[in-house]
Amino acid sequence: MADNLYSHQSTITTTAKSQRLGHQPCVVWLTGLSGSGKSTLANALERRLFVLGCRTHILDGDNVRLGLNSDLGFSPEDRQENIRRIGEVANLFAESGAVIITAFISPYQADRQRARFATHQPFFEVHVSADLDTCEERDPKGLYKKARAGIIKGFTGIDAPYEIPRNADVTVHTDTQSVEQCVNRIIDCLTSNQIL
Amino acid sequence: MADNLYSHQSTITTTAKSQRLGHQPCVVWLTGLSGSGKSTLANALERRLFVLGCRTHILDGDNVRLGLNSDLGFSPEDRQENIRRIGEVANLFAESGAVIITAFISPYQADRQRARFATHQPFFEVHVSADLDTCEERDPKGLYKKARAGIIKGFTGIDAPYEIPRNADVTVHTDTQSVEQCVNRIIDCLTSNQIL
Repeated sequence: MADNLYSHQSTITTTAKSQRLGHQPCVVWLTGLSGSGKSTLANALERRLFVLGCRTHILDGDNVRLGLNSDLGFSPEDRQENIRRIGEVANLFAESGAVIITAFISPYQADRQRARFATHQPFFEVHVSADLDTCEERDPKGLYKKARAGIIKGFTGIDAPYEIPRNADVTVHTDTQSVEQCVNRIIDCLTSNQIL
Repeated sequence: MADNLYSHQSTITTTAKSQRLGHQPCVVWLTGLSGSGKSTLANALERRLFVLGCRTHILDGDNVRLGLNSDLGFSPEDRQENIRRIGEVANLFAESGAVIITAFISPYQADRQRARFATHQPFFEVHVSADLDTCEERDPKGLYKKARAGIIKGFTGIDAPYEIPRNADVTVHTDTQSVEQCVNRIIDCLTSNQIL
């Protein structure tokens, strides 16, 4: 198959698109337990970036699961394929010049690593950390309750593992820091890496 | 599964992103035979849109095939899944405010129709038309030669069908019109539909 294909170089390069935008493209990969605050943080981060004039978008477990990955379930293989596709789509967005924010549990180190390698642009892994008790207390979608009742099987943190990032570029603690403080930490990281 | 999911509404809406950009988002879906000039046209269109200040990107059979859809082959089922995923990714880009250009053979009417339905933003199907002899003479990747020799099976136009769009929003004839004329036709369509 590879014989029939060649990587298509857009005439308007990522560099040209970035120069106009005034910021560099990158992937901001949020990872953490259900209820750790990934979507809240993704939205707050996007608001801040938008005010700064950045071109951004959010890929979210929910919106991607309803469209692109609607054919996938929650088996280990399907979760792996879910994250693989998201890493590839994040790369496409980054190549278009955007700061693309992804908000997925993405519990496995190997899958996150693969997403990093799929991206030809800077990639920042952000561990959205909150202890399990806090997440379970928040339980915004009632999923922990269902998992404890055995209605949902293989739920991360209950009966499926969450592999804590070993080399996160940023760790934010949503159980002790405000959303604004967490956003500040990520913005600082993007600034010190010359993205902004 | 759907019980666990809800469509994630970004706080910064597509409308807000569009207002800043000064144009509406949409999908420009190029369809046509191999060698009909889709990639050439996509690049020329993107150049024109970029000069006009638009936020654009190209999804191309080749770059998507090497990444997101690298797990898919060229069986009818895989070709269908290929186009399904691309329709969903195009929708994600359009929701981010972009004019997203897709350049795929996309030979089946039903698949193109599904891509249109997957998009919540305006969708323009552009038939990139050139007669088979012209395409085969161009044969930029030597694929027709391989298909005629039986090395490639199921090649669109040779031993697999191309269903001509019945209701294309624009038809361009790359065998009789210049690239610039073809781009003009598409720009006229986008303008008259208040995208630009």
